[in-house]
Amino acid sequence: MNFASDNVFGVDPRIMKAMVLANEGTAVSYAGDDITRRIEARFNAVFEREVQVFLVATGTAANALILSAMTPPYGAVFAHSHAHVMLDECGAPEFFTGGAKMIGLEGVGGKITPAMVADKISGFIRGEHDPRPAAISITQSTELGSVYSLEEIAAFGAFAGSRGLKLHMDGARFANALVALGCSPAQMSWKCGVDALSFGVTKNGAMGVEAVVFFDAGLAGDFAYRRMRAGQLLSKNRFLAAQLEAYFADDLWLENARRANRLARALAQGLGAIGAVRLAVPCEANAVFAVMPCSMVENLRERGAVFHDWIAGAADAQPPAEGEVMVRLVTSFATSARDVEQFLQIAGA
Amino acid sequence: MNFASDNVFGVDPRIMKAMVLANEGTAVSYAGDDITRRIEARFNAVFEREVQVFLVATGTAANALILSAMTPPYGAVFAHSHAHVMLDECGAPEFFTGGAKMIGLEGVGGKITPAMVADKISGFIRGEHDPRPAAISITQSTELGSVYSLEEIAAFGAFAGSRGLKLHMDGARFANALVALGCSPAQMSWKCGVDALSFGVTKNGAMGVEAVVFFDAGLAGDFAYRRMRAGQLLSKNRFLAAQLEAYFADDLWLENARRANRLARALAQGLGAIGAVRLAVPCEANAVFAVMPCSMVENLRERGAVFHDWIAGAADAQPPAEGEVMVRLVTSFATSARDVEQFLQIAGA
Amino acid sequence: MNFASDNVFGVDPRIMKAMVLANEGTAVSYAGDDITRRIEARFNAVFEREVQVFLVATGTAANALILSAMTPPYGAVFAHSHAHVMLDECGAPEFFTGGAKMIGLEGVGGKITPAMVADKISGFIRGEHDPRPAAISITQSTELGSVYSLEEIAAFGAFAGSRGLKLHMDGARFANALVALGCSPAQMSWKCGVDALSFGVTKNGAMGVEAVVFFDAGLAGDFAYRRMRAGQLLSKNRFLAAQLEAYFADDLWLENARRANRLARALAQGLGAIGAVRLAVPCEANAVFAVMPCSMVENLRERGAVFHDWIAGAADAQPPAEGEVMVRLVTSFATSARDVEQFLQIAGA
Amino acid sequence: MNFASDNVFGVDPRIMKAMVLANEGTAVSYAGDDITRRIEARFNAVFEREVQVFLVATGTAANALILSAMTPPYGAVFAHSHAHVMLDECGAPEFFTGGAKMIGLEGVGGKITPAMVADKISGFIRGEHDPRPAAISITQSTELGSVYSLEEIAAFGAFAGSRGLKLHMDGARFANALVALGCSPAQMSWKCGVDALSFGVTKNGAMGVEAVVFFDAGLAGDFAYRRMRAGQLLSKNRFLAAQLEAYFADDLWLENARRANRLARALAQGLGAIGAVRLAVPCEANAVFAVMPCSMVENLRERGAVFHDWIAGAADAQPPAEGEVMVRLVTSFATSARDVEQFLQIAGA
Repeated sequence: MNFASDNVFGVDPRIMKAMVLANEGTAVSYAGDDITRRIEARFNAVFEREVQVFLVATGTAANALILSAMTPPYGAVFAHSHAHVMLDECGAPEFFTGGAKMIGLEGVGGKITPAMVADKISGFIRGEHDPRPAAISITQSTELGSVYSLEEIAAFGAFAGSRGLKLHMDGARFANALVALGCSPAQMSWKCGVDALSFGVTKNGAMGVEAVVFFDAGLAGDFAYRRMRAGQLLSKNRFLAAQLEAYFADDLWLENARRANRLARALAQGLGAIGAVRLAVPCEANAVFAVMPCSMVENLRERGAVFHDWIAGAADAQPPAEGEVMVRLVTSFATSARDVEQFLQIAGA
Repeated sequence: MNFASDNVFGVDPRIMKAMVLANEGTAVSYAGDDITRRIEARFNAVFEREVQVFLVATGTAANALILSAMTPPYGAVFAHSHAHVMLDECGAPEFFTGGAKMIGLEGVGGKITPAMVADKISGFIRGEHDPRPAAISITQSTELGSVYSLEEIAAFGAFAGSRGLKLHMDGARFANALVALGCSPAQMSWKCGVDALSFGVTKNGAMGVEAVVFFDAGLAGDFAYRRMRAGQLLSKNRFLAAQLEAYFADDLWLENARRANRLARALAQGLGAIGAVRLAVPCEANAVFAVMPCSMVENLRERGAVFHDWIAGAADAQPPAEGEVMVRLVTSFATSARDVEQFLQIAGA
Repeated sequence: MNFASDNVFGVDPRIMKAMVLANEGTAVSYAGDDITRRIEARFNAVFEREVQVFLVATGTAANALILSAMTPPYGAVFAHSHAHVMLDECGAPEFFTGGAKMIGLEGVGGKITPAMVADKISGFIRGEHDPRPAAISITQSTELGSVYSLEEIAAFGAFAGSRGLKLHMDGARFANALVALGCSPAQMSWKCGVDALSFGVTKNGAMGVEAVVFFDAGLAGDFAYRRMRAGQLLSKNRFLAAQLEAYFADDLWLENARRANRLARALAQGLGAIGAVRLAVPCEANAVFAVMPCSMVENLRERGAVFHDWIAGAADAQPPAEGEVMVRLVTSFATSARDVEQFLQIAGA
Repeated sequence: MNFASDNVFGVDPRIMKAMVLANEGTAVSYAGDDITRRIEARFNAVFEREVQVFLVATGTAANALILSAMTPPYGAVFAHSHAHVMLDECGAPEFFTGGAKMIGLEGVGGKITPAMVADKISGFIRGEHDPRPAAISITQSTELGSVYSLEEIAAFGAFAGSRGLKLHMDGARFANALVALGCSPAQMSWKCGVDALSFGVTKNGAMGVEAVVFFDAGLAGDFAYRRMRAGQLLSKNRFLAAQLEAYFADDLWLENARRANRLARALAQGLGAIGAVRLAVPCEANAVFAVMPCSMVENLRERGAVFHDWIAGAADAQPPAEGEVMVRLVTSFATSARDVEQFLQIAGA
């Protein structure tokens, strides 16, 4: 019963198989190979337009590299104060951008709004004493498992465009949000004004690859240099590309995301039906945030359930009272339905 | 007949198999898994002492991260002017170190000497107007396929120690050098005074993993932070560790390196016997640098041989004359003996 | 009637005279001159112990350079969210530290507490995914004109020491705070555990010089390199040192600070006696923060008064209501008593 | 007899007087004052076109800040290997540019040529593994006291333009070169294709101010942010501007430069007439580089002459033999003719 994260699971067998099959003969190193060429074309098809794609090894690298292309070192980047780029990357955005100012915004349910960004910027009245507003980063699905609607994303796109800001989407769980909204990749990204996307793959079944996807070609121009000098250009890049080829084949990615979301929903519904438990945010993707009695949490862990306590700050529900704790439960492509049932049984007992 | 690089080949089947086998159940993410624990212990055994090990995705990351732990941003790092850290990483060392000064030294046969470093430092007579000498980086085997002897490495160790400098070894081809010298990993590293090692794995049969190995524990203290904020901590780290586990099993790494070196030697001997060809440096590991007539090079390429022209600057032989060119031929664990024979046949025809 | 800032005034005539007198003959450049030597000794006397002193051109440089010596690039620095290092330096701390995480804390009256820092650090439970807590920066007097008591500073010193953090004091208005507390420079700094001090001079009568003062000699070791490569080592450094020599002579600095504080107190008392005005924070140094009716503010400006509106966030009084605004009034060594009287007359009319 | 550098002298009395006069009343801080406005207009007049001007405290800051606007962090900057930006700034260019690659070129007489840059770039054949060529920096007059002709500068301008590179001129001794060539400031800068200029003032009589001058307005757009976050925006900026106002008044700057050059020429001629001495480079501005017998050097120093030994590498004369040493002698606006005479007497005795 491991609900600690979607990255505690291994690799989808179909993806692993593709890697084994890619291991044939020689290939031009450093992304000059045929599989990389094919996957670039595939991304164009997935997003229904020409995009620029660069594969990297981690989501932190994808996020920080994109931000480094979006902001000068004296710029400001706006994001939710609980966003991965703010809290989980040990200063990678500051490192990669050469010291840009990361400005956290408080927003309930894990979401921020253009108005929050506008409000911050309205305080920048002292010329170069303030940093130059440069980019907004939103996470889809969010760190609290909520999902921005297309309207919400489009509002960011319009706002960013009108202010000369770039819009980044951290899509570590892009697939989970996509199937939640039931829209197309194009709709959830560039059609709403997203300039660049961290397209997550690892959490949804890959071994270790994330795709940097640019819709704003101007940002992509020199990106190869950035990836290289960050040590993120793999010599045997074909094995990253092979993971993505399997990921897209037969809509494996959507299938995996749907499964994870379905199990999360079942978990949320089951927990919602238990009197002593309340959901901290509505479950919209593959994570459930719930406030539970400490005794229930202890009992679950004793019986083998694995999951993390979570910071209650960004939730929109009543915060944990004495004797309560907020926890995070994440499901994945490989979570078993039995684990969900068993978890609910123990919780409800 | 691909002699372009050792990274144009795929993954050793035994390493690939280990990755498939590692794909079982859940594992603590971000290097908290059991295979990572085991491989750390294994490194202690390989190096006959306690070492600190951190896995990363690329050699550029390994090198630049180690240098960032060795030099302050106002420091100077000395290396051969043709070293990978000088020429092939698009400024990664400058990026990771926060702007340290990379100082290239000219040395024949791809090698530098402590005297060259001492000479440079002797010009640093103006206090803080010069950078602070901080580290030396040597490559084993070198970019020209030569191998530092244990005496040569120990001379660097003694020199660095006496000057308060740190000594880094870029061991992208550590195994090839090791079997060339026929010594132990301990002898070729910390026993000679090496403080930290980029332990190469990818070029010798892995899919994509390099190990940062610290012999100076003080340098390792905060290294986890550096790896994290460089986007080099993989969530599913077990698959990096699994590659290394197979790499060490049954001395696979030494077997692969011996095979590559043997084929390179055959290539070198064959070419040396051709009148119109001269070796640019003695072949000591798995690369051959040869000056050939342009017509021979053209003919080889037309007949399917793949290899790169190379910068002649660091060689110790007579530079290419009009109508000649210097080329690099690299062999690997997966190079076929037939390819070597065929190459020599065409060249000698 | 200029209350915009203490830096709108020029140079104290006694300091200007010292610069003219320093303009004799030749002197070793780059801080190798005699006046620099003398001023270093003078700092030892002022602080009653050996200190390391480095002169720089601006307060932003002093702050950012000190922080760069206190935190690794993957570290975290804690400061009031309205501190100069957070809000007014366009990312200089991020730049100089190589991307350290600047973490703002909300505190009323412009002050923070060790408990606020402890609370933030208690959320750092994920190892290298969080930055490494490295330093605390407090401002004395604060951006709201309040003054930390010796007990409050000592509490920071004790806390920082117990947690392995470094303690920085931004003393852009060190003199104003010092005379407010009526203690010695030693008491207000290293005796309370301050490790390094940005010793402000410019706002209190100099032309352009700030002193970086280290009480922790370990931090000072390589600081000369940092100053140099930041372009903050002036070739004709004697003219910076000369300003400080005059600053300390006959306690000019204390006299100037006392005068500025006295006028601020008069301003605060006068405003406090006006019914429609309320002080946002008690006036303890040389700045007055007051909430005024907009009509009064307009009238003052029409009659020639110059001053800035201010962000109300950090004040401890009731925030401005509709039709009110918070303003900042700063006095200096050169503010005239007549200006204060006239300002109060117009405000009270 | 101080020939150590032109910065061992103090401030021209007319410049000092202007600073004293600027000390009247209040002025908007941070470069918002009237004198700063006037000096900006004055620069337009001096350069016969609209330019963007930013004052900073040191030449190192001017150089490094300009380069940071010219190159991305993954770019390469080409300069003479003995240039100030390469050798004398402790890595400031690497720091300010976020880690750009500084590539030194060897050239006799302190000069480089476009062909040398072209030759280096021709080796950049591996895409993003090499840095992206971004800028060229030339020094006028050079570190060896030689002066680029207008034709030589124009050749750089044409080359840079054709390759998409930016051209920086380090004009720490701009005035000395200008009067040597007898041309206009416009001719020696933008008319030859210079994009940005470090306009030196301090060495030619100021207390401490250098002007960053942009001819390429695109580079200047965000420069205010860069200056601010480098801690190079002085609050009492009027005192920097006042120095420049006096510098330009009545052509003081040209008068000072002419005097320095005249004395250097006298020194060079006098030394050239001594059999045991040979000039290392022709004296074209205000510095003399000479190879002298060690005994002569010792004698001069014993008799009170102050000057530095120098690295012989970049000279175009026969290098020092056993018992010889190369020295640098710099004259300034305040060097006395008597000192020159006396120096020559002792040397020739």
